[in-house]
Amino acid sequence: MLDGSQTKPLLRVLAGERLTDPPVWLMRQAGRYLPEYRSIRQKADSFLSLCFNPELAAEVTLQPVRRFGFDAAILFSDILVVPHALGQRVTFEDGEGPRLDALADPAALQRLKREIDHEALAPVYETIARLKNKLPPAVTLIGFCGAPWTVATYMIAGGGAAEQIPARLFAYRHPQAFAALIALLVEASTDYLARQFEAGVEAVQIFDSWAGVLPADEFRKWCIEPIARIVGALRHRVPGAKVIGFPRGAGTELPCYLAAVAVDAVGLDWTIELSFARERIQALRPVQGNLDPLALLAGGQALDRAVDAILEAFSGGPFIFNLGHGVLPDTPVAHVERLIERVRNRSGSR
Amino acid sequence: MLDGSQTKPLLRVLAGERLTDPPVWLMRQAGRYLPEYRSIRQKADSFLSLCFNPELAAEVTLQPVRRFGFDAAILFSDILVVPHALGQRVTFEDGEGPRLDALADPAALQRLKREIDHEALAPVYETIARLKNKLPPAVTLIGFCGAPWTVATYMIAGGGAAEQIPARLFAYRHPQAFAALIALLVEASTDYLARQFEAGVEAVQIFDSWAGVLPADEFRKWCIEPIARIVGALRHRVPGAKVIGFPRGAGTELPCYLAAVAVDAVGLDWTIELSFARERIQALRPVQGNLDPLALLAGGQALDRAVDAILEAFSGGPFIFNLGHGVLPDTPVAHVERLIERVRNRSGSR
Repeated sequence: MLDGSQTKPLLRVLAGERLTDPPVWLMRQAGRYLPEYRSIRQKADSFLSLCFNPELAAEVTLQPVRRFGFDAAILFSDILVVPHALGQRVTFEDGEGPRLDALADPAALQRLKREIDHEALAPVYETIARLKNKLPPAVTLIGFCGAPWTVATYMIAGGGAAEQIPARLFAYRHPQAFAALIALLVEASTDYLARQFEAGVEAVQIFDSWAGVLPADEFRKWCIEPIARIVGALRHRVPGAKVIGFPRGAGTELPCYLAAVAVDAVGLDWTIELSFARERIQALRPVQGNLDPLALLAGGQALDRAVDAILEAFSGGPFIFNLGHGVLPDTPVAHVERLIERVRNRSGSR
Repeated sequence: MLDGSQTKPLLRVLAGERLTDPPVWLMRQAGRYLPEYRSIRQKADSFLSLCFNPELAAEVTLQPVRRFGFDAAILFSDILVVPHALGQRVTFEDGEGPRLDALADPAALQRLKREIDHEALAPVYETIARLKNKLPPAVTLIGFCGAPWTVATYMIAGGGAAEQIPARLFAYRHPQAFAALIALLVEASTDYLARQFEAGVEAVQIFDSWAGVLPADEFRKWCIEPIARIVGALRHRVPGAKVIGFPRGAGTELPCYLAAVAVDAVGLDWTIELSFARERIQALRPVQGNLDPLALLAGGQALDRAVDAILEAFSGGPFIFNLGHGVLPDTPVAHVERLIERVRNRSGSR
């Protein structure tokens, strides 16, 4: 299933190659900032029913590739389909974050299934199958899941929570129960990613959006080790599986993460110091990132300067241009066009 | 005013000395987790009127020193007294965060005074004067202010805001107006800190609680450069003034911060990787930190292990034991006792 890797720019970078024109895609490139997304969104009852409608989810995945010519399409879905497929109730209210039945104490873990329900996820695999033959030949199809720590923060808090206090406290107070939840998520995520590869994705990204709130020792236990187990087990089932890690906010812990986790590339958030990233991260592995999504929203000179600084920092090595987090809903489409033009013009001139 | 520095453990560490028993204090060591604080708090109409009542504010400052024998007392006040003294309306609702008249656009900056109103801050200086003769001889009195970036985030958003989006967007869209606000805060903060030294503090801490949300280039412009100007101007007015910087979340940007800002020590938040901190930060400057406040709240083995890891990492150099952020209101007093006992027993045995 990894045929064609030689001709797809993103897969070439994941193999360690430096390209004069770095491939470009954006986290949350499919979404509310696009008028064509908003018009499809109206056709689905809820956000989750859109994720689970293969026809609509495939269309939404393709929209930004069609409009902007990105080098990758990322499956339109959500990291919380995994708790859903483990039997936890998950809903998304419009304009608010997700809502889950919070796992308030160790006993609540009994409510979860022992393994992931692939029937519940069948529409996701069908979306991937539909996308497989619809993408331009140079475009890479990326699947994803949330990292166990990040998914657990939502499962325990019942939604987003400032600094993930409920999950951090649960882990301190009930380390064995928390380890059991993480182990369940390691297995579920490995299974889920393997099925995504079998359905047709060519690379996956593991989103650890809340990696940045943990002390070093907890980060090692709840982020690094579980992700290392996922990547190891996934490669056993899907030899050569390409994986991008995105431990947002890991900062000074990134070298430890890369020493332990065999990802092919690492996504950098927008706060990392660029010379540190070049010398201590890109020297080890291809990097992806890391434009501030607010610079993209603001546009103008702020955007141009931020794009230039990133190209300057990372163009000397294997590099995928991306944001440092997802596209914000109020982002003007014209700013995305300006970004792509600038990346392609500036980098080509080197 | 810096007499006695030879005998006060905290000032010895700020002068670069390594002590076998590191001094200990905790950010927000005076506050809601203490029953004696809650009983004083009832006597004041509002949080701000407590800050501006020298008798009560001095008493509240002394409470944790009396109960726990900390090596420092930190002035009981709030970083938002500076916007208050610049003419912005600031209130604190119980159980919620602060509320300010948001500075929504560049024109709103006209509402601010051109310089800080020391009359409005006179009760703070009187609190310091009262404290000066009431502390045990080995205890250091610490004053503080917020860093310009962090104070500006509250002034622009009108309160706390997830990832400080309003201020970041203001800075991208109106860089000149934002620079003018920062310049006003640099001047106001320098004046404010100089007056605190004149009233009797022996060291100050500059809290940059929201330093962690900025890209490297913005961090340099809005955090590093303004704080460097404050420290330079303060030392001109108060020769030898001792300053602790606390750029929370600065992570990989900490070496840049220390290269440019002449602080005597740097506070580390709880997320920094310990070997990075020892090798790349403590090698340059004394460090202060960095226990996860949630580990203190959780107590038990989680607390013991976290304390031990920090002592292990930093005891070889100049070091002040502290949290990586403020004490949380639900923290049991017994956990603070356990922390102090462990720090004093473990470190003494080295």
